[in-house]
Order: sequence, then structure tokens, then C-alpha cells
Amino acid sequence: MDTTARTTFTRKAERGSHDRHAADAILAEALVGHVGFADATGAPVVLPVAIAPDGDRVLVHGSTGARLFRTLASGVPACLTVTLLDGLVLARSAFESSMDYRSLVVLGSFTEVLGDEKLRALRVLTDHLTPGRWDALRPMTPKEVAATMVLAIPLAQCSVKARTGGTDEPAEDRTWPIWAGQLPVVVGTGTPIPEPGVAQHLPGPVAPRALGGPGAA
Amino acid sequence: MDTTARTTFTRKAERGSHDRHAADAILAEALVGHVGFADATGAPVVLPVAIAPDGDRVLVHGSTGARLFRTLASGVPACLTVTLLDGLVLARSAFESSMDYRSLVVLGSFTEVLGDEKLRALRVLTDHLTPGRWDALRPMTPKEVAATMVLAIPLAQCSVKARTGGTDEPAEDRTWPIWAGQLPVVVGTGTPIPEPGVAQHLPGPVAPRALGGPGAA
Repeated sequence: MDTTARTTFTRKAERGSHDRHAADAILAEALVGHVGFADATGAPVVLPVAIAPDGDRVLVHGSTGARLFRTLASGVPACLTVTLLDGLVLARSAFESSMDYRSLVVLGSFTEVLGDEKLRALRVLTDHLTPGRWDALRPMTPKEVAATMVLAIPLAQCSVKARTGGTDEPAEDRTWPIWAGQLPVVVGTGTPIPEPGVAQHLPGPVAPRALGGPGAA
Repeated sequence: MDTTARTTFTRKAERGSHDRHAADAILAEALVGHVGFADATGAPVVLPVAIAPDGDRVLVHGSTGARLFRTLASGVPACLTVTLLDGLVLARSAFESSMDYRSLVVLGSFTEVLGDEKLRALRVLTDHLTPGRWDALRPMTPKEVAATMVLAIPLAQCSVKARTGGTDEPAEDRTWPIWAGQLPVVVGTGTPIPEPGVAQHLPGPVAPRALGGPGAA
């Protein structure tokens, strides 16, 4: 992972990292990222996208008819940011209150995944978002594959910022009479809601499962 | 809420809305948004920020020393996007699989909140992120207030996009032998972790509470 002027930390550098393992850990948990690019007027636009890690890159996918994906496919400068909110940090003062989080910022541009790689990339995306499901799904038709755009951004220029742990308060605050500590944020799936007529014995990841921390809450 | 060329939906327009109530509902639940702006090279950067609704605007805050907040305070074009992931939609095909989500995109620029408004805005932020806590906290000192920048972006130019409900599959897919339906995404706080020496009888929002859907999972 390169460290460039654009990924050099200017503040709270102790929370920053160019560690690829930290990036991979975030991507292993996250289902959604936010991609930024300039619109036709040059102004920034940020939109949510489903994501999946794929080795040294991150995959996104969507309709070939979507302006977002057509724009990204043209190779414009982009930023993909993936944030997991791990907890609320409740200090005795507003000033020292904070959040525990992990955030990955990937700078660069997207390129379209084509040819033989495309179907494999769609499998990677599907099995990241819904683990193990690809092999049991009705296979994609050539028409569906053609109507889907898959894009990848390399993890070449990226950085991770994170905060963990409890409050970091001055000693004189610690006697203030209010509860203080961490409220972990927990994300998971709730009770599955089957489509009409779906038999419960059918295979599929229907048991509630834990998910990584959210980018919001 | 104005509808302008920049907030006109080009695709899946049925999922789009300029309804202010939809925007308010997202902001009532969300704790984190993602803000996009152009860096010194003109390339887009997207960073996570804690957010709070405040009438016709959204508040963010951070250190006066942070490059992000200094840049935003200069009035550059910005985009604040707030996404709640409500569930995974598991169709029998990868193509029809989707996510239930709500996403608010706010275009515009931030202005600094100053003077008498600033302390009120800090209360709004604190009580959104940790409901009811402001009055029990050790009060902010003038030095702390001075070291904190509060910024607001108006909800003038914004749009909401959302997907809800189950799969939207063609009839011929509905006999494929795999479970299909919705997996709701549930977000909440887990077991609180007190700071050393914190007495359990102290006031504070320490019981686990439900939070809105995440921007990731």
C-alpha cells in the first residue's frame, strides 16, 4: 500500500494506518461503501454501493443503465470509503465523547471487469454479500450478465483510520457523577421474512447471523 | 425541498423521493454520514462524520484542527450522504437479489455555526448521538467550545432513494429450490463496558437500545 501525499495523515495520525491487514479486515465485514466522484458540474456526489473485497481490489456492481456506474466506468477520479461503527464512547464531557470506528479510504479510479473475469467477480460479490449462496442460486443468464456492470478499484492508494477503546479523559473529569464507558454497536440479521410459498426446509442462509459494525446506526 | 437537475432521478425513479419526511426519518435514525468534497488536487475525497438533524439543516462537528472541517468551512461544494441498510433481499437469482435501504443525498455547502447558536448546536449533536446526555455531562468549557468546529449544511437540495419489501422476481424463478425472502438488518447497542470505577447506579443511557439501520453491516 503506497503512502502518498493524498493519503498522509494530518491529524490524529496515531489513529491512521497503511496496514493492508486493517483494510482487509474492514472489507471482510462491510457490505456497503460510499463512492465519491464529481458530477457533470464538477461538484462532488457521494452514493452508497454494495461492495466485496477481491484480492488487491474492491468490487462494486450495478445496472449498465445506472448513471453512477457509467460515470465510474469512464475512469474518473473516485474515492471509495468503507466505515464500520464499532461503538459509542461516552465520556463525562461532550468534548471527550467519541465513537469507536474503522474507516477505509480508497483513492483511485474504477475499471470495468470484463470477459471471463466478470462471472467470477459476480460470484465473489454474491458470496460476500450472502455467503455460500452463489452455487445454490438460479444461474445468471447471459442477458443478465450483460445487463450488469462490474467495476473494480485497486487497493493501491488507501488508508485506514480507526479508534478503539474507552474514554480518554483527563483525571479531573473522572469523578463527574455520570455513567461513562463504551456502548458497543452490534449489527446482525433479524428474523428472516420468507417470500410467499417458500418452504422452510429449502437451503439458504436463513438463520440470523452477526454482521460487522455499521457505517451508521 | 427543491428538485433541480442535480437531484433529478435518472434511474429507478420509483425508488426516489424529494419528500422531506423521508429525509427526516433517515436523519432521526442515523448517527453517521459520509461527506464528499474535492481535495487540493481536485480529486474527490469521502470521509465519515457524525451527524445530527437540526430543523432544516444537518449538523456535523469536529476539531478546528482537522483538515476536513477546515476545508468544509471554506464553503467548498460538498455532498453529505446518509445511508441506512435495512435488510438483504435474497432472490432465487443473483440478478434479482438486492438490498433494502434508505439513502439521503444532500448537495450544497457547509457553513460554520457561530455565536450563541454554537452551544445550542453542540447540545443538539450530543443529544442526537447520545439521547438525553447533555444535561448530565460535565459542561463544556469555553476552551473546548473554541476548539470544536460546528458546521451545518441545509436540506435545501436533497433527495432520498429507498428500496423496501421482498424480492421482485419473475414468476418462473419462484419454483427454484432455494430459500428466498428478506433478511432484516438489525442494529443496536450491546453490553455496555464501563470505565474503571464507574458505579452502576450513575445516570446515563447504559441500557442496550435499538439503533437505526446501518450504512454497512
